[in-house]
Amino acid sequence: MKILVTNDDGIYADGIQQLARALAKNPDNEVLVVAPDREQSATGHAITLHRPLRVKEVNYDSADAESLAVNGTPADCVKLGIEAILEEKPDIVISGINRGPNLGCDVLYSGTVSAAFEGILLGVPAVAVSLAAYDDLNFTYAAEFISELVEDLAEKGLDKEVLLNVNIPPCNREELEGVQITKLGNRSYINTFDQRTDPRGEDYYWMGGDIVEEGNDEETDVAAVNQQRISITPIRLNLTDFEAIEELSQKDLDIF
Amino acid sequence: MKILVTNDDGIYADGIQQLARALAKNPDNEVLVVAPDREQSATGHAITLHRPLRVKEVNYDSADAESLAVNGTPADCVKLGIEAILEEKPDIVISGINRGPNLGCDVLYSGTVSAAFEGILLGVPAVAVSLAAYDDLNFTYAAEFISELVEDLAEKGLDKEVLLNVNIPPCNREELEGVQITKLGNRSYINTFDQRTDPRGEDYYWMGGDIVEEGNDEETDVAAVNQQRISITPIRLNLTDFEAIEELSQKDLDIF
Repeated sequence: MKILVTNDDGIYADGIQQLARALAKNPDNEVLVVAPDREQSATGHAITLHRPLRVKEVNYDSADAESLAVNGTPADCVKLGIEAILEEKPDIVISGINRGPNLGCDVLYSGTVSAAFEGILLGVPAVAVSLAAYDDLNFTYAAEFISELVEDLAEKGLDKEVLLNVNIPPCNREELEGVQITKLGNRSYINTFDQRTDPRGEDYYWMGGDIVEEGNDEETDVAAVNQQRISITPIRLNLTDFEAIEELSQKDLDIF
Repeated sequence: MKILVTNDDGIYADGIQQLARALAKNPDNEVLVVAPDREQSATGHAITLHRPLRVKEVNYDSADAESLAVNGTPADCVKLGIEAILEEKPDIVISGINRGPNLGCDVLYSGTVSAAFEGILLGVPAVAVSLAAYDDLNFTYAAEFISELVEDLAEKGLDKEVLLNVNIPPCNREELEGVQITKLGNRSYINTFDQRTDPRGEDYYWMGGDIVEEGNDEETDVAAVNQQRISITPIRLNLTDFEAIEELSQKDLDIF
């Protein structure tokens, strides 16, 4: 398989290096890493239109993968990789392994997930992978899992129009309770802004906030990860709310 | 109605100023503008976590609306407006009027649409508005249309969970062929990268590309706007592909 790997934590992050290594272990895989040259968390699906992009080769310690750093966003990296660097389309885009979960509404803000979305937009199957932890990160099992998942998916047929969003609980292989196909759950943030005053008397705000996970049934990604199951959520390209088309049509808007 | 107005072209853009004026003409409306201090096109749903945000009051010529400029993204502006500036939630968030259409997959890249998404995430009904033109921009009718649409929607009941993405063709009121509730169509970009060499012999890339609109049936936003109809597309918050959950479960992934 030809695999394009990217992330949003930046090309020097542990998560992407371990992922690239695990994928390159399989001699049938051809792995190309194209990733941001610095952290790009919470960039959403931003792309870079107003300044030129640069591509620089970097060397990882021991990965058998060509690695290119881009001064842009995760979505830029996937566009560049597929449309300018690779001679033919890769078989799959894998984005991650992210430091921290991407559950529920996180997928809208996540550069990791947006990079995978970009793959789907360009007609390439795509997987986003996150480790649901911020400290004591151990990417070893997560990297192996994704490597196996991709092999298995390739055998059973990869869907070009469905993004798979994978979240892996932060525990050892033995403690995991299995794999669950899930829907996106509820995850929101409260008390988001911390208002402060600088030494010149001017106000400024830090975005912050605590996570609230409420109303998540057993079928959600949030519940699965909390119960130490690996969560795989299919996410679709077309964001139209088809039910609402009918409802809106019935409202008989009086505006023209 | 309490209305929070934002955009991604920046607070000094014509589109937002005309929108704010049209909304403030109705004495029952209370309009607050919180918008980026500079252009933020194609920022997607990026938010600003790694530097503080500043808020500065700016004065428009003749709009009866308080206007605050933020050194952040459209999504930042909506978060700040709702969670830090306004004492209670607004009745609606309106994002626009964007210079240029936001059709099909554009909604993933668009700061305009992402700002509206942020409203929905925070439990506030939201509308994104774009004028499908880049030159000879005339926002007058578009601003009036949105002002009427919002009044009509408020009477008939605003949905807190469905974003309305409105695209207005670039023609006069008399040339318009009506309003259509649509689904997102196909709109992609080809030949995206222009590779050049700088005076020091280093390569760089400009993202560019031509738009391709293929396979759009009569029900799509792309077709509606091409036929001079105003397009209103409902977009949903939950991106789960529910059909794919079933399919994936049947694949019996052999990975654990």
